[in-house]
Amino acid sequence: MEKYRFTYQDIHRTARDIADRVKASGFEPDIIVAIGSGGFIPARIIRTFLGKPILAVGVAYYDANDKPTDLPHKVQWIEEAEKKLAGKRILLVDEVDDSRTTLEYCVRELLRHDPAEVAVAVLHDKKKDKRGAIPAEVKRYFAGRTIPDKWIVYPWDAEDIDDHDAMAADNPPID
Amino acid sequence: MEKYRFTYQDIHRTARDIADRVKASGFEPDIIVAIGSGGFIPARIIRTFLGKPILAVGVAYYDANDKPTDLPHKVQWIEEAEKKLAGKRILLVDEVDDSRTTLEYCVRELLRHDPAEVAVAVLHDKKKDKRGAIPAEVKRYFAGRTIPDKWIVYPWDAEDIDDHDAMAADNPPID
Repeated sequence: MEKYRFTYQDIHRTARDIADRVKASGFEPDIIVAIGSGGFIPARIIRTFLGKPILAVGVAYYDANDKPTDLPHKVQWIEEAEKKLAGKRILLVDEVDDSRTTLEYCVRELLRHDPAEVAVAVLHDKKKDKRGAIPAEVKRYFAGRTIPDKWIVYPWDAEDIDDHDAMAADNPPID
Repeated sequence: MEKYRFTYQDIHRTARDIADRVKASGFEPDIIVAIGSGGFIPARIIRTFLGKPILAVGVAYYDANDKPTDLPHKVQWIEEAEKKLAGKRILLVDEVDDSRTTLEYCVRELLRHDPAEVAVAVLHDKKKDKRGAIPAEVKRYFAGRTIPDKWIVYPWDAEDIDDHDAMAADNPPID
């Protein structure tokens, strides 16, 4: 199976591009919500360009006995911060929009706290049938790149970053 | 003022080295706690090598009116997860040990919840007089590199990642 390998430099440029498009859209988030752990790195880079604080949330697809679950559930949520979400503009960030179930779950949870707006940003959106749906309340969706449904290898998952970069250079992702 | 500029590849190698040393020490964390937002990227890379879940905490040195504060306070904490910390082995991760006040604050907060052990890992420890102190309960402290007290420019703060990498290559950090 063909894979997409992105370098940290690719990711940094894509995150900057997302931030540029967020600004160009007129959306000014008050806060960035990172979906952990995949969203931590893109959210932190986007923060450089938007200058807003990050709150982190964690969702998982395994239960207390490490058994896989069909639907996501909260591992960490922002209980103490939720009071602060009312009336706020939120940019929800994750690395990839794959089945869309995680994004749908997180958007729905955030919407329960009456934010002014929730926008979504992902580094990569896979072109495929999605199991989840982005709720209609979300008016802005920023995908750094839209790519075919292939396996993605992110640089932070590399066992050896030099090998990873060499493989990424030999076989650059083509849309 | 001379600056240290690290590339993402430097950071990835340092995070891997930390994970190797954590393993060699015999410490097996149950959970990684990332101090946001600086600890998000190192924690996510360390997770690749240790394979443990990440919880995120946020502390800030500014108040509700954006005025600087002398001591850190919680922006996000892991209330709902704290019950789960009792008896657990925690690896607390941040990018840099500068004045040590953030680390002291976070360690003390974590210790209140009766973990089995709290260990600390940072990419970089600056050689300088520290305002904070690591509580004596912490038996293991992992610094990826110990460096002189200079300004650090992390790759995720780069306006342009190619410029950053070129400057880092021209002037590699020397201990």
